[in-house]
Amino acid sequence: MSLNIIILAAGKGTRMYSNMPKVLHQIAGKSMLEHVINVAETLKPSNINVVIGHGKEQVLAQLAHKTNITWVEQTEQLGTGHAVKMVLPHIPPYGRTLVLYGDVPLIDTATLSQLLDTAGEQVGLLTDVLDNPTGYGRILRNRDGKVEGIVEEKDARIEQKAIREINTGIFVLPNRYLDNWLGALSAENAQGEYYLTDVIALAVRDGIHVNPMMVRASYLASGVNNKIQLAELERIYQREQSSALLRQGVTLRDPARLDIRGSLKVGLDVVIDVNCVFEGDNELGDNVQIGANCIIKNAKIGAGTVVQPFSHFENCEIGANAQIGPFARLRPQAVLADDVHIGNFVEVKNSTIGKGSKANHLTYLGDATIGTNTNIGAGTITCNYDGVNKHKTVIGNDVRIGSDTMLVAPVTIEDKVTTGAGSVITKNCELGKLVVARAQQVVIENWQRPEKTPVTPAQTESTEKPTKSKTPRKRSTKR
Amino acid sequence: MSLNIIILAAGKGTRMYSNMPKVLHQIAGKSMLEHVINVAETLKPSNINVVIGHGKEQVLAQLAHKTNITWVEQTEQLGTGHAVKMVLPHIPPYGRTLVLYGDVPLIDTATLSQLLDTAGEQVGLLTDVLDNPTGYGRILRNRDGKVEGIVEEKDARIEQKAIREINTGIFVLPNRYLDNWLGALSAENAQGEYYLTDVIALAVRDGIHVNPMMVRASYLASGVNNKIQLAELERIYQREQSSALLRQGVTLRDPARLDIRGSLKVGLDVVIDVNCVFEGDNELGDNVQIGANCIIKNAKIGAGTVVQPFSHFENCEIGANAQIGPFARLRPQAVLADDVHIGNFVEVKNSTIGKGSKANHLTYLGDATIGTNTNIGAGTITCNYDGVNKHKTVIGNDVRIGSDTMLVAPVTIEDKVTTGAGSVITKNCELGKLVVARAQQVVIENWQRPEKTPVTPAQTESTEKPTKSKTPRKRSTKR
Amino acid sequence: MSLNIIILAAGKGTRMYSNMPKVLHQIAGKSMLEHVINVAETLKPSNINVVIGHGKEQVLAQLAHKTNITWVEQTEQLGTGHAVKMVLPHIPPYGRTLVLYGDVPLIDTATLSQLLDTAGEQVGLLTDVLDNPTGYGRILRNRDGKVEGIVEEKDARIEQKAIREINTGIFVLPNRYLDNWLGALSAENAQGEYYLTDVIALAVRDGIHVNPMMVRASYLASGVNNKIQLAELERIYQREQSSALLRQGVTLRDPARLDIRGSLKVGLDVVIDVNCVFEGDNELGDNVQIGANCIIKNAKIGAGTVVQPFSHFENCEIGANAQIGPFARLRPQAVLADDVHIGNFVEVKNSTIGKGSKANHLTYLGDATIGTNTNIGAGTITCNYDGVNKHKTVIGNDVRIGSDTMLVAPVTIEDKVTTGAGSVITKNCELGKLVVARAQQVVIENWQRPEKTPVTPAQTESTEKPTKSKTPRKRSTKR
Repeated sequence: MSLNIIILAAGKGTRMYSNMPKVLHQIAGKSMLEHVINVAETLKPSNINVVIGHGKEQVLAQLAHKTNITWVEQTEQLGTGHAVKMVLPHIPPYGRTLVLYGDVPLIDTATLSQLLDTAGEQVGLLTDVLDNPTGYGRILRNRDGKVEGIVEEKDARIEQKAIREINTGIFVLPNRYLDNWLGALSAENAQGEYYLTDVIALAVRDGIHVNPMMVRASYLASGVNNKIQLAELERIYQREQSSALLRQGVTLRDPARLDIRGSLKVGLDVVIDVNCVFEGDNELGDNVQIGANCIIKNAKIGAGTVVQPFSHFENCEIGANAQIGPFARLRPQAVLADDVHIGNFVEVKNSTIGKGSKANHLTYLGDATIGTNTNIGAGTITCNYDGVNKHKTVIGNDVRIGSDTMLVAPVTIEDKVTTGAGSVITKNCELGKLVVARAQQVVIENWQRPEKTPVTPAQTESTEKPTKSKTPRKRSTKR
Repeated sequence: MSLNIIILAAGKGTRMYSNMPKVLHQIAGKSMLEHVINVAETLKPSNINVVIGHGKEQVLAQLAHKTNITWVEQTEQLGTGHAVKMVLPHIPPYGRTLVLYGDVPLIDTATLSQLLDTAGEQVGLLTDVLDNPTGYGRILRNRDGKVEGIVEEKDARIEQKAIREINTGIFVLPNRYLDNWLGALSAENAQGEYYLTDVIALAVRDGIHVNPMMVRASYLASGVNNKIQLAELERIYQREQSSALLRQGVTLRDPARLDIRGSLKVGLDVVIDVNCVFEGDNELGDNVQIGANCIIKNAKIGAGTVVQPFSHFENCEIGANAQIGPFARLRPQAVLADDVHIGNFVEVKNSTIGKGSKANHLTYLGDATIGTNTNIGAGTITCNYDGVNKHKTVIGNDVRIGSDTMLVAPVTIEDKVTTGAGSVITKNCELGKLVVARAQQVVIENWQRPEKTPVTPAQTESTEKPTKSKTPRKRSTKR
Repeated sequence: MSLNIIILAAGKGTRMYSNMPKVLHQIAGKSMLEHVINVAETLKPSNINVVIGHGKEQVLAQLAHKTNITWVEQTEQLGTGHAVKMVLPHIPPYGRTLVLYGDVPLIDTATLSQLLDTAGEQVGLLTDVLDNPTGYGRILRNRDGKVEGIVEEKDARIEQKAIREINTGIFVLPNRYLDNWLGALSAENAQGEYYLTDVIALAVRDGIHVNPMMVRASYLASGVNNKIQLAELERIYQREQSSALLRQGVTLRDPARLDIRGSLKVGLDVVIDVNCVFEGDNELGDNVQIGANCIIKNAKIGAGTVVQPFSHFENCEIGANAQIGPFARLRPQAVLADDVHIGNFVEVKNSTIGKGSKANHLTYLGDATIGTNTNIGAGTITCNYDGVNKHKTVIGNDVRIGSDTMLVAPVTIEDKVTTGAGSVITKNCELGKLVVARAQQVVIENWQRPEKTPVTPAQTESTEKPTKSKTPRKRSTKR
């Protein structure tokens, strides 16, 4: 039986207090609407129709990559029934239609598959049971448990208000009745809107069975109307992801302090410490350890690699048995081979680092290619930018770059070169040479250093400046 | 009707295990007593009297800015009734008096306003209803719901112990009875103390109505006697602040992992990621995004600015559409214009940075003025301190400071200057010039680099030193 | 009465999905088995026998420091009764035996001492009461409350299934019956295993009293079979540690966001901000403040010291009234005296820093000895490594190291020396001298800097390179 899906996503979401349409607000780094579309896609429907209205340009711009969607505009906000009606031209007169909501983001494939099974060729109705059902349409069942209708809060008699089973709004409808039922909806109510819910009464009228299914957990069918609800679903979603990782055998030091905004593929014996955030698509090999407070985005990390706390990765690749961090920053196109060490306050961008090479302290490596077993001294900088263009630095194998070496690109440092500390390297260095660019050390005679008057306690700021002072003194010859 | 307020704050707080008097322990970065005083002030009373005793010098020192307070010393700790009695000389015989507690920090204006309304010209009594009322004085009401008295735990009959409505100790009392009632208190009890609670019985005796009001949430009237309770109220307070932000439309990735210790003013569509701490007074413009793990104190951040994770700000100002972090440190008097970029491992202190300028890597900028569209290369340092005085660095527009440039202040770099990487700039640089201070690159011939014996695996430490080694070798000429 | 302890630790833990045997998975940085052994040791038993099987080599390797353990191998996994039987050769025929489990990690001394008291010379049985006892053996008691036996889930009648008191598996057994009872166990059950639990029935049969004791909290007797349970116990354990610190008077900004993996000794008025992790053995003096997001391992921190956020310490010692961080990294053998300041992006390793000395920005200090009141300028690096050996840097008192000074070790800087910014210091510096190694500042005439074509907006990368460009220009003379 062919399946059509309609996702209602035209609302403004006034209570979000935002310039963005409601369905673009995010759960786990992805808009609520995209979550729903992704689930819809797993059901392999004939078509997916998304009804948009408020902020439609923003929606279309942000979901431009969803090329399989039929976008249907609802110019007037006349209710859910009206919204579904807008889609009718795209719905064939056979098969069935599943109605979803762009602001009910955590609905999942298992629930919807089961609902479709439950619906059969008749109507399927997803229900929930709430401790406090106030405000929701209550499900009226007869003695046999068959659904006889839905009664809205305002119309409910006192004993009906006690019913705790409520309508989630998620329906499966047989297409052949759609035209008739939607045409029969009335807007004669307080809001002047056409309510899709009223099709249930029409189904009962027409003798079509309404097959209810209770959702296994409320969050799956929960809607978002404000930021409190958005945050609640975010945390529920994150806890579900933590639980899934734990079930796979990942060790999490605190399942409540992990955020995964995308996919995380893990090997055996992976350990993730507290307060980490994973964004995009990440992959961790066997025995990978991620320290506390790491932010990792689109990274692939090889087996046995240890990532120390406070590391921040984006779009990078790390080999096996590497030692990274703490305070390491890997930016896009950082590609690190096995056994690489990257230490604290080191940034790597668009650079390839060969097996066993190390950059342990206070370094910037950009647009560089570095061979194997090379050591990059503390304070090294690849000067890759001339204000207009980026240039490449090529460093060979077994090189020892001295501390505070400036590598003015384009420049090539051949294998086994050693550079002296504090050198500015502007010309290529040949195989095995020691290269320095360094001024001679001299003592400035008769210089008197500025001193504080004895009463003042020592100041705390650093960065010495030897040659100027308010204290009168004999001036040393400037070099 | 004029209002006097008495805040009892003389206790030691033995169970805090601290050298500080109890009321100075903090919730959200502010002492409990200051929270109570701040709420008291909102009621616009004729006077606020704070009774102090233990650690009074510390209290007076820390709250010296509260110049509107009448500080009253209670030299002997003889109970709450005695404490209030100490204030009598400051209370006129008309109007009424509200009694608060320096260790009940989360009482709020709404509750107290309503209690004052409830009290009218008679007695007002704030009550709470607890699941487990053990240890508290129970509220005795007659069949009409009128309060007939308070019975303490030790005096309560079995059926009275079942009463779950308890006395919070927060009262409104008519001043004209105060003298009489306080004089009638007795210290003939186990502790030998004068209990303020006994005035309720005296009011009933005198035919004065005791008008009770139940507090809307227990935390508002909860006292702090130990660090567990302090931590509980801290978290409740923080959750309340998170909820308030969510209601304003802020997106919080985890409301349970946000700490606000002061005020936070936000525009539309602000997003705050997990584990951030805001201290002092902060202001975030529309569309500001704060990454995970940021610590932000007294900062004003312009619309559209993105703050990456691990950023740490204090007393600074950032314009619109700036890009800051990760690992950025802005210290006091860092003033950044629109479109400024500050990258990783960069510290800015007492400096002004013009529109569109950038300092992206491993840099220290102190006491500097930087123009527009200037680029500060990696590893740049303003050498602002000569050991005695701080000096200013002035950098113009469209300047390109090369990597690892030392700017020895006072020094001026005019517009469009370029400095060579690795230069120490001690003299002013003129408009549009290329300035370098750099030694020539030379190859040291016949140098043999120290090598490990083949069996030893490569060590992991960095920072090369080319000229010394235990390995015998021909020594290169030192430069 | 002499006490023997048997700890069962032979299981694989299939549901851990790990290559490690189950008992090596960690709670608070220590394997579950080590937790149990540590508690066992506090009972001062005659011997502790650990039954190992799966992954025994890993267990022996990781617990090699526990030299007091009798390791007993169970080659076939034939059940708990069989495992205990393996230990019989090490159990004397007098005294009693306590049976513990390597995957019940949070059992504590108080519970076990009380159980031993309860047991007397008869059988002791630790029980728990669960809301949902499904799956556990239920405790059968007679009308007098005496234990008559344990019925397993599968054998339980409907009214027995309603019993909520369950067997934890932790027993005290009189040694003189052990041989007989263990010999009487049968493996005729679904799993074909010998169950230790069956000894309870044998004790009842033999007229030995089974003295039950209910555990005061379920977590104490909870076993770990998967990573979800491991994470649950981790968080419970951490909350217990937080509560213990709060009871001692420590101020914790969020007790739910603190991890202590080892011991933490604290003075008075210690404040620990959110999201800190302590590993190993740490000691904090009076009035120490630890900022948010610090990772501290094996550190001793003196009274009054303030540690700013994002600091990362390992195996180091800090004196009193020091100011450390933010973004400070102290590595092993960093020894800081009183009043030392270490600022942002500064790493210290194997170095001693004297009273009142400061290194506030972007610095690497390794293998250095620094005197008192010395100031280390921003960007300073001790070049301690020549690729083979580490060398020492010795810096005296009242020294002012200029910004970006490279100290090529071995090198000695005597008292009151000043070094010029940007100097590479390769030779010793004598008392009070100003030493510089710096090239002259020159203007390169006729140089034209590379400029973008006007249409291109400014790029965001930094690190200037003045001398090369794709833009045609008159080439400046290279220096």
